[in-house]
Amino acid sequence: MANQYAVIGLGRFGINIANKLFESGQDVLGIDVNEERVDEAQSYVTHAVIADSTDAEAMKTIGIRNFDTVIVAIGNDIQASILSVLLLKEMGVPKVIAKALNKLHGQVLEKVGADWVVYPERDMGIRVAHQLLSPNVLNFIEISKDYSVEEVKIPNSMIDKTLREIDLRAKFNISVIAIRHNHDIHITPSPDKLLDKGDVLVVIGKNRDLERFANLD
Amino acid sequence: MANQYAVIGLGRFGINIANKLFESGQDVLGIDVNEERVDEAQSYVTHAVIADSTDAEAMKTIGIRNFDTVIVAIGNDIQASILSVLLLKEMGVPKVIAKALNKLHGQVLEKVGADWVVYPERDMGIRVAHQLLSPNVLNFIEISKDYSVEEVKIPNSMIDKTLREIDLRAKFNISVIAIRHNHDIHITPSPDKLLDKGDVLVVIGKNRDLERFANLD
Amino acid sequence: MANQYAVIGLGRFGINIANKLFESGQDVLGIDVNEERVDEAQSYVTHAVIADSTDAEAMKTIGIRNFDTVIVAIGNDIQASILSVLLLKEMGVPKVIAKALNKLHGQVLEKVGADWVVYPERDMGIRVAHQLLSPNVLNFIEISKDYSVEEVKIPNSMIDKTLREIDLRAKFNISVIAIRHNHDIHITPSPDKLLDKGDVLVVIGKNRDLERFANLD
Amino acid sequence: MANQYAVIGLGRFGINIANKLFESGQDVLGIDVNEERVDEAQSYVTHAVIADSTDAEAMKTIGIRNFDTVIVAIGNDIQASILSVLLLKEMGVPKVIAKALNKLHGQVLEKVGADWVVYPERDMGIRVAHQLLSPNVLNFIEISKDYSVEEVKIPNSMIDKTLREIDLRAKFNISVIAIRHNHDIHITPSPDKLLDKGDVLVVIGKNRDLERFANLD
Amino acid sequence: MANQYAVIGLGRFGINIANKLFESGQDVLGIDVNEERVDEAQSYVTHAVIADSTDAEAMKTIGIRNFDTVIVAIGNDIQASILSVLLLKEMGVPKVIAKALNKLHGQVLEKVGADWVVYPERDMGIRVAHQLLSPNVLNFIEISKDYSVEEVKIPNSMIDKTLREIDLRAKFNISVIAIRHNHDIHITPSPDKLLDKGDVLVVIGKNRDLERFANLD
Amino acid sequence: MANQYAVIGLGRFGINIANKLFESGQDVLGIDVNEERVDEAQSYVTHAVIADSTDAEAMKTIGIRNFDTVIVAIGNDIQASILSVLLLKEMGVPKVIAKALNKLHGQVLEKVGADWVVYPERDMGIRVAHQLLSPNVLNFIEISKDYSVEEVKIPNSMIDKTLREIDLRAKFNISVIAIRHNHDIHITPSPDKLLDKGDVLVVIGKNRDLERFANLD
Amino acid sequence: MANQYAVIGLGRFGINIANKLFESGQDVLGIDVNEERVDEAQSYVTHAVIADSTDAEAMKTIGIRNFDTVIVAIGNDIQASILSVLLLKEMGVPKVIAKALNKLHGQVLEKVGADWVVYPERDMGIRVAHQLLSPNVLNFIEISKDYSVEEVKIPNSMIDKTLREIDLRAKFNISVIAIRHNHDIHITPSPDKLLDKGDVLVVIGKNRDLERFANLD
Amino acid sequence: MANQYAVIGLGRFGINIANKLFESGQDVLGIDVNEERVDEAQSYVTHAVIADSTDAEAMKTIGIRNFDTVIVAIGNDIQASILSVLLLKEMGVPKVIAKALNKLHGQVLEKVGADWVVYPERDMGIRVAHQLLSPNVLNFIEISKDYSVEEVKIPNSMIDKTLREIDLRAKFNISVIAIRHNHDIHITPSPDKLLDKGDVLVVIGKNRDLERFANLD
Repeated sequence: MANQYAVIGLGRFGINIANKLFESGQDVLGIDVNEERVDEAQSYVTHAVIADSTDAEAMKTIGIRNFDTVIVAIGNDIQASILSVLLLKEMGVPKVIAKALNKLHGQVLEKVGADWVVYPERDMGIRVAHQLLSPNVLNFIEISKDYSVEEVKIPNSMIDKTLREIDLRAKFNISVIAIRHNHDIHITPSPDKLLDKGDVLVVIGKNRDLERFANLD
Repeated sequence: MANQYAVIGLGRFGINIANKLFESGQDVLGIDVNEERVDEAQSYVTHAVIADSTDAEAMKTIGIRNFDTVIVAIGNDIQASILSVLLLKEMGVPKVIAKALNKLHGQVLEKVGADWVVYPERDMGIRVAHQLLSPNVLNFIEISKDYSVEEVKIPNSMIDKTLREIDLRAKFNISVIAIRHNHDIHITPSPDKLLDKGDVLVVIGKNRDLERFANLD
Repeated sequence: MANQYAVIGLGRFGINIANKLFESGQDVLGIDVNEERVDEAQSYVTHAVIADSTDAEAMKTIGIRNFDTVIVAIGNDIQASILSVLLLKEMGVPKVIAKALNKLHGQVLEKVGADWVVYPERDMGIRVAHQLLSPNVLNFIEISKDYSVEEVKIPNSMIDKTLREIDLRAKFNISVIAIRHNHDIHITPSPDKLLDKGDVLVVIGKNRDLERFANLD
Repeated sequence: MANQYAVIGLGRFGINIANKLFESGQDVLGIDVNEERVDEAQSYVTHAVIADSTDAEAMKTIGIRNFDTVIVAIGNDIQASILSVLLLKEMGVPKVIAKALNKLHGQVLEKVGADWVVYPERDMGIRVAHQLLSPNVLNFIEISKDYSVEEVKIPNSMIDKTLREIDLRAKFNISVIAIRHNHDIHITPSPDKLLDKGDVLVVIGKNRDLERFANLD
Repeated sequence: MANQYAVIGLGRFGINIANKLFESGQDVLGIDVNEERVDEAQSYVTHAVIADSTDAEAMKTIGIRNFDTVIVAIGNDIQASILSVLLLKEMGVPKVIAKALNKLHGQVLEKVGADWVVYPERDMGIRVAHQLLSPNVLNFIEISKDYSVEEVKIPNSMIDKTLREIDLRAKFNISVIAIRHNHDIHITPSPDKLLDKGDVLVVIGKNRDLERFANLD
Repeated sequence: MANQYAVIGLGRFGINIANKLFESGQDVLGIDVNEERVDEAQSYVTHAVIADSTDAEAMKTIGIRNFDTVIVAIGNDIQASILSVLLLKEMGVPKVIAKALNKLHGQVLEKVGADWVVYPERDMGIRVAHQLLSPNVLNFIEISKDYSVEEVKIPNSMIDKTLREIDLRAKFNISVIAIRHNHDIHITPSPDKLLDKGDVLVVIGKNRDLERFANLD
Repeated sequence: MANQYAVIGLGRFGINIANKLFESGQDVLGIDVNEERVDEAQSYVTHAVIADSTDAEAMKTIGIRNFDTVIVAIGNDIQASILSVLLLKEMGVPKVIAKALNKLHGQVLEKVGADWVVYPERDMGIRVAHQLLSPNVLNFIEISKDYSVEEVKIPNSMIDKTLREIDLRAKFNISVIAIRHNHDIHITPSPDKLLDKGDVLVVIGKNRDLERFANLD
Repeated sequence: MANQYAVIGLGRFGINIANKLFESGQDVLGIDVNEERVDEAQSYVTHAVIADSTDAEAMKTIGIRNFDTVIVAIGNDIQASILSVLLLKEMGVPKVIAKALNKLHGQVLEKVGADWVVYPERDMGIRVAHQLLSPNVLNFIEISKDYSVEEVKIPNSMIDKTLREIDLRAKFNISVIAIRHNHDIHITPSPDKLLDKGDVLVVIGKNRDLERFANLD
């Protein structure tokens, strides 16, 4: 059965969460104080209503306590964000996710009961900076403080060589998990696989080893 | 040698990019029309100045054409964002990254010459929604339309079993790349490795297979 | 030795607290973001400074952690009030008193660590209402849910009678603690004391008994 | 028979007076120029209307002259407060209570006929300061310039002693009127009454004697 | 010796009073909170200063109590007008003239001590209306409820007649006080005086008689 | 038959003209762009409408060309005042009266066709100043540059004297036209008339002679 | 068949284009976000609607892609102007004309696809300056960098002379194309044509020759 | 000798006039109340000053009466535009040019003495509309109500024909004055001149004949 989600604050961040959940077949209620934004949201969510999330009566009327998860994606009004989270937890909403504008704001959200605090601008800023620093790294996840999985464009010097020849494990102490050749994915590829221009490797290893590899020409 | 970066617009998104680059040892110039934000930025970048990025004379004075990469992270002023990108490309800046508020804005930025357009709120919205839908998936990268690498918390049913017993390849057609046990990472772990409560698997496979696995209890 | 107090927010409520403390020989620092209010406050406190109480650096600079007690008397900016209390407690201020505008606000203040939350408008509203309802009652304190001590003007019917004659204990089940005759106070007065026009009794008893007495003509 | 009250200005101060009167069974009309506040007030008063208290016609229409007491609790608009009081007295309202923001304002209110002028922020400021200065004093009323009745937490040194042993009359020249033990009140307690941790004494005496007692450890 | 006047509020009304007094050889201090208006006033008064007339300290500094007469000509800020008058009278200014915007305002000004209240817009409105109704009447003063002195252009029918012929006393019961012929004034003119085109009569009589005369063709 | 008047701009000046005309039995149309002011004016004029006097279509719709006299009493909007006068004259209104804020404004009004320009604040300012300078002069009209008629309170030194005794013609070269004794008016009074305390003389003479007389003690 | 035009932005510039096209028998749709301007435009165009030209849905609803030519005459909102042009070209409008406020704006408009960019204030400024410099030149067109056709008032020295006598070709190297005499036009006039006071010549020649001629007295 | 020009109002229209005059070697003073605009104008005019053109003193100080021509190019402030023109004419400026926003504004400008009133937005709107209607017509001047000179691109059907063959005089009753071939101008060209692709004809004739010709394919 689909979960019940409510998203409070239908700015760019909120509407994208709401719409992604809706497209995945979830039941999503969009809530905003701004009529115009509610109108625009109607086609991206199951239902959208104008309501003030700091008004206990209004929240009761729309039965907010029956939602499994409420995302407080309020843009810039720190006060409304804090009061909304408090109210939602007081009313018994099991899971409240809230967007913080800065560390102080995030701390207050945790104190008033937010189950998960997200910092979208900070996280995206870091992500973009990472990509600028290592342009060959198309994407990455840090799996611990020291290890990451990365998607890396192969340097020109490796074109027309086999995995065995480039021997990343020996030279960089990193493992190749997969190769993307055009739109095909080869998982745990054979050591004799010949690398082509434009191929992308999915590798795992320590961050400092990955960095050395990613900065090869 | 360190690269020369300039970040225009020192809001939360811009300051995070700028600071990350600066911490990585790059030379970063912060630029904003707002004095207060420039003051605050001083400790996060190499240097910060008050300047209007739509004013050609001002941009010449600070020698913007000598920067390798300029990030236009202007918050909400679409007009300033467009005129700045045009001016920077007219002046010969090699690489201009620009933040777009929506698709139409992104299209104009590309037409006036932006080398890379980013949509932070949209991307973070999608990322948060993904995590809500699959709470066991701690992180992920899509390596093609169909394949992803994911970091997944093991379901309770797999505790105290070996990788061989759970045999993910046979049951879900996915491969285990690594196991995180507390803070340790085991790359290409042995099939006899016993899974513990709280262990996290790094797996690769098709999205629909990963989804089946991630939703196990 | 005098205590160290800081009062944040020099509106009418804050300035009155600050001044009363100062007049009692305490060391009081007044803090406000508004220059004009800081100027006006200079003659009512030991020292007054312009500073933003949500700015950790600013609070460090004035050594806020060395104050025994900080009163957050911020007028209408709920956000600033919450962030200030959080910051002060994070910095280790032993006692933080905060003014709340309403119940929801008060709950957040408690969650972020306020040691004592006051509601001046609510309390004064109740006090004024009480006095309107019982005009003979000049002042009162509730010592439990059911009992109060009250200062009551004597009804005309009791003029020129002795305490024994009016026998409040028998008729109303209340005790006379003191009599105020003009500017003199007679504690535990003799039963033969004759009541005069304008005399005021300090009595103790159950609220419903006191009410019956206070409404005598 | 219930009295007829009208409260003009339904801010936090006004609404609290209005509601307290209403809960005490009085007939209370709430008046404000602001529609939103009137809506919110509906459940706290007998009836609430939108009206401008400086508009003679509007006041006539709602029959303001038939009210026994009108409380002018207008927030910050000094002009409206003054004109309203004048108008109400001109129309013959017997008792007009008005809130003043400062001394000058209060003087004008008296000149135009206010029967009672209250200064809620000043009074609450003084009250809070008093409590900070003597934390053991939970509550107090000044019955003359020199004498007060106070509710005082007993110092640790008096635990497990009898009233006779501590002999407050001899040592501090103050009288014990009552003891609060948990939720029970003992009026004029026996000298052999043993004091327990957490007990609260209601005492009467001179201010300087009370102060000495209240600051015992 | 010249009197000492202060004019508070240097709008069009205030500056005209101030300048007229100054031109008559009086000592005039102009006061306004607005810098620009004070600058403009410098050439029309003895001296002009920027000061807030509701600020007791500021008024003391300029020694307002030494002025014989203070005119409070504040434009639209009723609150400032009231508080200023109160303050001036409290400080002992012998004569305070104040401009009122409407009747209610005027009443408050009188209650707080204004010695003379003027209503310039009302008075000029009435004056202009009077002139529109009787275009032949160039000017007038009402010397009682029923009698006026008026300056009236002679109707065409009286040109080339003598005062004796037109005999206003008999026909209209009004007396001719003077005749203005071009720029000459003839006081108590001879009955044989011939009236010329453009001559103006100064007459005295009852209002209803004057009206009959003024409306002759 | 009554004239047709329209008054544009229903501020304090306009509404007073309009109402005076209306009370004198004229037909008066009030016009303002502000709904609230039009509502308030309804009881002071024959009819009041919301209309923009710079909008030719609107003026045609209300048939402004059929009015004998239009008074443009627009408060502070110089542009609207000028365009309105131009439009009214273009449309053929016979008589347009306009209020000017200053000399430059007045000149433009005349250039665009105003038949009569009035300066109410200036005129009232001068009038009040005059009265301050000669407090005994209750009222006056200037009948030429050198001559005035004035209403003057008699100085104390003239009480209980006859007109013959004080002989104003000889001593001051001024003529007594009338005496006001309480509410009675005596025109061309007998030389033996005895002056009483509080009597008021209506006199005619040269300004400098009148001034000498008015300043007697 | 008439063309289909749409004009976006009904300010003074837009409404004049729209109306001129409409008067020439074209079908013109006026579009503006401002209701008032749309109302005023109704009588100057075929049809006028309220719509936001940056809103793709709204533009689809009014079928903007079926118009041959769309003029984007938006006043001061550079952002709206840019986004509108992009959207119109994306939707396939064949010809988009856009008004630019300055050169940078104009460049962006061209980059996003504007077929023709106009700079009305710049062009009119130049035109007026030209006329001030050569007051005899009533009108002109530049047909190349060096040549113009001009309409020139004849200098007084040429009155009552024939074209042959003044021989402009010999003296100034310019040709007379036509003579305007009162309201008559004489094309390629006879050399014996006598010039009259007020006659205007239409001439063609090099700019520097025309200038010499135009500045004759 | 160069003329003396002053341009009041340095918006886009004013700055373009000012700069064109300055480039033509004239002495141009730029005047604006806005400091920023005056700064920007410094490099486009002889001299630029901050001054308020409705302030007679300020205009005297800069000696405005010594300028031959003053252009009042004030943007949107109709009041300032009118008062400035009046003041300039009162001070004796020989030639005052003024920009009008609409017809009513233009009429007032003429009444207060403007020597020439221009309507830039209207004129440019008409010009652009004309060009849209006849795309082949590159430029034009109307030399009377019925006749124009136009610059017209030749239709494809005339390529490689001689002027004699196309015989415009016979077929359209219009005369060819010149041919532009690339950058060359041929005045009164020979009838045997062969027309080439891209050639432009300068023609004179009646409007309706020109229109028939311009719309040939």
